[in-house]
Amino acid sequence: MMSTIDLRSDTVTKPTDEMRKAMAEAKVGDDVYGEDPTVIELEQLAAEITGHEAALFVCSGTMGNLVSLLTHCNRGEGVVLGFKSHIYNNEGGGLSALGGLVPLCVNDDQGIPDHNEILSYCRDENVHYTPAKLLCLENTHNACGGIAISPDRFSSVVDLARSKGLLVHLDGARIFNAAIAWGVEPKTYTEIVDSVQFCLSKGLGAPIGSLICGKRDYINRAKHWRKRVGGGLRQAGVIAAAGLIALNNYADLKYDHEKAKVLKDILKNGGVKVVDVFKPTNMVYFDLNDDVDVIQLANSCKRRGLLFNPTFPRVRLVTHRDVTFEDVEMAAKIILEELS
Amino acid sequence: MMSTIDLRSDTVTKPTDEMRKAMAEAKVGDDVYGEDPTVIELEQLAAEITGHEAALFVCSGTMGNLVSLLTHCNRGEGVVLGFKSHIYNNEGGGLSALGGLVPLCVNDDQGIPDHNEILSYCRDENVHYTPAKLLCLENTHNACGGIAISPDRFSSVVDLARSKGLLVHLDGARIFNAAIAWGVEPKTYTEIVDSVQFCLSKGLGAPIGSLICGKRDYINRAKHWRKRVGGGLRQAGVIAAAGLIALNNYADLKYDHEKAKVLKDILKNGGVKVVDVFKPTNMVYFDLNDDVDVIQLANSCKRRGLLFNPTFPRVRLVTHRDVTFEDVEMAAKIILEELS
Amino acid sequence: MMSTIDLRSDTVTKPTDEMRKAMAEAKVGDDVYGEDPTVIELEQLAAEITGHEAALFVCSGTMGNLVSLLTHCNRGEGVVLGFKSHIYNNEGGGLSALGGLVPLCVNDDQGIPDHNEILSYCRDENVHYTPAKLLCLENTHNACGGIAISPDRFSSVVDLARSKGLLVHLDGARIFNAAIAWGVEPKTYTEIVDSVQFCLSKGLGAPIGSLICGKRDYINRAKHWRKRVGGGLRQAGVIAAAGLIALNNYADLKYDHEKAKVLKDILKNGGVKVVDVFKPTNMVYFDLNDDVDVIQLANSCKRRGLLFNPTFPRVRLVTHRDVTFEDVEMAAKIILEELS
Amino acid sequence: MMSTIDLRSDTVTKPTDEMRKAMAEAKVGDDVYGEDPTVIELEQLAAEITGHEAALFVCSGTMGNLVSLLTHCNRGEGVVLGFKSHIYNNEGGGLSALGGLVPLCVNDDQGIPDHNEILSYCRDENVHYTPAKLLCLENTHNACGGIAISPDRFSSVVDLARSKGLLVHLDGARIFNAAIAWGVEPKTYTEIVDSVQFCLSKGLGAPIGSLICGKRDYINRAKHWRKRVGGGLRQAGVIAAAGLIALNNYADLKYDHEKAKVLKDILKNGGVKVVDVFKPTNMVYFDLNDDVDVIQLANSCKRRGLLFNPTFPRVRLVTHRDVTFEDVEMAAKIILEELS
Repeated sequence: MMSTIDLRSDTVTKPTDEMRKAMAEAKVGDDVYGEDPTVIELEQLAAEITGHEAALFVCSGTMGNLVSLLTHCNRGEGVVLGFKSHIYNNEGGGLSALGGLVPLCVNDDQGIPDHNEILSYCRDENVHYTPAKLLCLENTHNACGGIAISPDRFSSVVDLARSKGLLVHLDGARIFNAAIAWGVEPKTYTEIVDSVQFCLSKGLGAPIGSLICGKRDYINRAKHWRKRVGGGLRQAGVIAAAGLIALNNYADLKYDHEKAKVLKDILKNGGVKVVDVFKPTNMVYFDLNDDVDVIQLANSCKRRGLLFNPTFPRVRLVTHRDVTFEDVEMAAKIILEELS
Repeated sequence: MMSTIDLRSDTVTKPTDEMRKAMAEAKVGDDVYGEDPTVIELEQLAAEITGHEAALFVCSGTMGNLVSLLTHCNRGEGVVLGFKSHIYNNEGGGLSALGGLVPLCVNDDQGIPDHNEILSYCRDENVHYTPAKLLCLENTHNACGGIAISPDRFSSVVDLARSKGLLVHLDGARIFNAAIAWGVEPKTYTEIVDSVQFCLSKGLGAPIGSLICGKRDYINRAKHWRKRVGGGLRQAGVIAAAGLIALNNYADLKYDHEKAKVLKDILKNGGVKVVDVFKPTNMVYFDLNDDVDVIQLANSCKRRGLLFNPTFPRVRLVTHRDVTFEDVEMAAKIILEELS
Repeated sequence: MMSTIDLRSDTVTKPTDEMRKAMAEAKVGDDVYGEDPTVIELEQLAAEITGHEAALFVCSGTMGNLVSLLTHCNRGEGVVLGFKSHIYNNEGGGLSALGGLVPLCVNDDQGIPDHNEILSYCRDENVHYTPAKLLCLENTHNACGGIAISPDRFSSVVDLARSKGLLVHLDGARIFNAAIAWGVEPKTYTEIVDSVQFCLSKGLGAPIGSLICGKRDYINRAKHWRKRVGGGLRQAGVIAAAGLIALNNYADLKYDHEKAKVLKDILKNGGVKVVDVFKPTNMVYFDLNDDVDVIQLANSCKRRGLLFNPTFPRVRLVTHRDVTFEDVEMAAKIILEELS
Repeated sequence: MMSTIDLRSDTVTKPTDEMRKAMAEAKVGDDVYGEDPTVIELEQLAAEITGHEAALFVCSGTMGNLVSLLTHCNRGEGVVLGFKSHIYNNEGGGLSALGGLVPLCVNDDQGIPDHNEILSYCRDENVHYTPAKLLCLENTHNACGGIAISPDRFSSVVDLARSKGLLVHLDGARIFNAAIAWGVEPKTYTEIVDSVQFCLSKGLGAPIGSLICGKRDYINRAKHWRKRVGGGLRQAGVIAAAGLIALNNYADLKYDHEKAKVLKDILKNGGVKVVDVFKPTNMVYFDLNDDVDVIQLANSCKRRGLLFNPTFPRVRLVTHRDVTFEDVEMAAKIILEELS
């Protein structure tokens, strides 16, 4: 049987044997009562790594972002975020739908919100205007090529926000990829924001779960919103156990970046219009010519064992633990052949 | 005593003697019971002029827009609207804050939403995406220079929306200005949309009130939302009486346009960086040089009897019934002198 | 032509000649800019009478209550209120629908929330529970026979709420009726709560409008919510002028109470099952026998010039300025004859 | 070391060895892409057992209820539910806080909503009233002694709701306990409602997870709300595997009922004021005398290895798989001794 090379997302990674074993042997308790030792251990590790007082285990990145926004902001307050951000585009509009929050959109073509556009929402009190309360950042920035924002650019926009009285939330679904790309501690990014969400179930390879980190009071208030959205779990230690392994091994993400580089170089050398980003991570984006039928292309590749999401004209390929260097070379080969 | 030339907005117009007399003599009833004859008359006239089955009297343009959006859309649905639209920028984010609706922002630098950006939100069903339900248009478009959108461009975007299954709401706070600028019946714009809101209290000069127009079923459902937001009034005929006069005299708005032209020409000839728009109405926008202190400028003008809102770097001047041709000439003179 | 005796509600009162004259001559300005002198005068009078720092003119009682609740409470907070309260039953559920607030219902059969049931919602922090934030009172209590709550019972429940950290909002749509019934200053009730809403358009007889009163900071924050729901008006002085007259003459409400007493006594003596309340105001409730068809009864009465809402089995009759003592005697006569 | 007898809730059950093994060996895929075979298997089994077209795996009972209500109801619609229901009291008010839904509370002292009170909310359309859309039932009813509602009473209230055009949602967190108590198939209850939520993580003993079941279209729409609240998981098969075992063994819940009976009988014979319910399941409620300090009692019991939640004056004890018959005898003994 032909094995599949799945480059649709790093969310497709399956739990390792080590994770499965840990799950089977996990010490557990009822986490709604705060009694699951494995969850507690995971939350403590997350808080430590991100440089925050406390952390909270949540079911997904979307839940982590939603709970964070609901905790920071009251109904009717404005959330400054990038047009291309995941929170704005890929979470069903939950911040408005469920929370009555108003997205104040700014240009983030470069992966980070434009300073002047942020400032344009920091206005005097006026009954006509939505008051800006929170700035959301995303790092790495998925829709901008998986770019890793540099510590300097990152801290600069955080400083700007603070100078205007805004809180800052980091959608750090892939913050460890950013840290590795720039060769810095994750804390470099995470300890300067008011809250950060990161995912265990993307490149880190755990089956389920995310964490949000912040001050203790913030986490206590977040627990109420987690419960309301249905994220209060019982013996969550069974999944936290896999998360602990994932988190302790985040340094391995560097291999995903190397695989992406291999993939990108082959495609580029083959004449594919690869999107260059200043500091790439585990994603490769390329643009199709107008005459390409992406559905047909995806199907042809699928028959040969390669999966990607058929978006047009820009296609995303994501590397992760469950593809090898050989896999990505094969993937590049298949694409080049199918495009020729 | 020096009289004031108030160019801050056409909302500042005061009721005429004729309106005051009509208000004092209005036949009234309890409109929550649907028994106010003057309100009924006004609603019928509004429906007739806009080419719709029914109309509903509301307290303000903001209420008319909010009630329309709440009636058309369920919690979590997407409202495609222009970045510079009044609904997005100047109504406190009520659509999200109160209605759980998600603004899907598109470029409207030319006064009308960009076709391709509208299409980008008309996606296949996918749990990640906010489903687009409604397109909002604004005509005349306040923040784009008070530009009147042409019937052709207007119907073209309406057709696009319909072809994608979107409903269309027109924020026609100043739709009569648009019709007059293009020399067409208001119906040209209003009868092709699913709902329209227009204001009696802007250039039309009534003290209070707006109307929303649409199908009878839509209006019946809108009554529930009007009541919920607190817009169910009792003897509303006292204000509807002034509205009737305003609406019957909408043709007089042409003088406001002429006054704006006078104002604009003098400023332009005096070297002011006036913003040109393709089809102007009763607004003149101009840009200040970087070295101008707009607060100081506004104060200097105020001392000489001229009022405008001190925005920077772009200043808006609005003509209306309560300023004369002589007033606008004087206003231009004051501004030129204070800028020199 | 037969004149109509309309006992459906005190909302049906039409503006007096004095009010109409005042409206026609009102000094006005743009109230969104805070420049309407008549509105300002009305707000100052309202603040003074209720013993609060500031007041805000709103379009209706429903709007006043909604804006108050949105200002006091964040999304997800609990509002303790009576089952039979107008806010819970007759305002379309706006507090939840628009504000994400959770009604925490308590027994108010006696016109005032039950102390023990209030306490049952004042719980320790627990992620399962809606945190109680605000207690709503209603005085006079419409659905409980129009009863006027005594100053003692009123202050007692306010004290209870405060001792538990709850804010208190008074739906005082008819608070002047309560004050008159007990022979006290309105302030007796209003100055001890955090906010009060009262209506100009019920027994006070103005065509439109209500006021909310509270601390200055509260009113400033309430302005944002008033704008969002569409209650920011322009030349609102035209209706505020009638409101000023209404408010200055609240003492005349005593006649409504006297008329209600006449009505009640005749009905009771005629064998009608009138509902007794400890301190009645301008309402008379009576219960129909099971075999009465209330629609038919209401139609028969209507043919004879008497209007009431056909509810079953309990019917409400409301006295007001626009019915005379002779009218209520005639009303009682008609009902007795039609029931016999 | 003394082992603990934890009677706080059946949520405290820990995964069995069989479950742990199944989790470790589960076939998994990315469930956001609909590719997790174990989740698919569990959803199919749940649909089959409940007699519905489709099912959806969710993170918790609270999430299942929330997603169901958001799917059935638009903003501003009314949800008729019991005062003592879990949805109203123990889920943080999420239906209002997040969904803009209005709880229409009815008496459910007997475990099932009062028919007349349900009817009182089925009113003619009127802008003052919240329109009733959905009836929520709870079976077994936690706060009413864990009572199992009989099939007859259950279908009777469902019929009533349908005759008035209401949809019906069943919070069946413990519906299998109800079915076993009455000796009927779960389907008897579940196939006659529009949607049902049941929990794997209570008496069934799985660590995490609930399911909602209904028509295919309903489930498709529910997926959008599940994603918005953050319940879209990746390799959820690891927990679904435990859920499959739990669901296939629901018949074992009968032992929990037997344990509860033993516990109840001993307490009752010992003079404790046990609450009698017509058809009990796995809960025993008893009332403390006024002079008992429940915190102190709970602490004394805890020192002897017995846990329960210290509520006053009514205490709940819950039996489950992780306590033996000997444990409940010991528990009863400890309580009797500490109370004497």
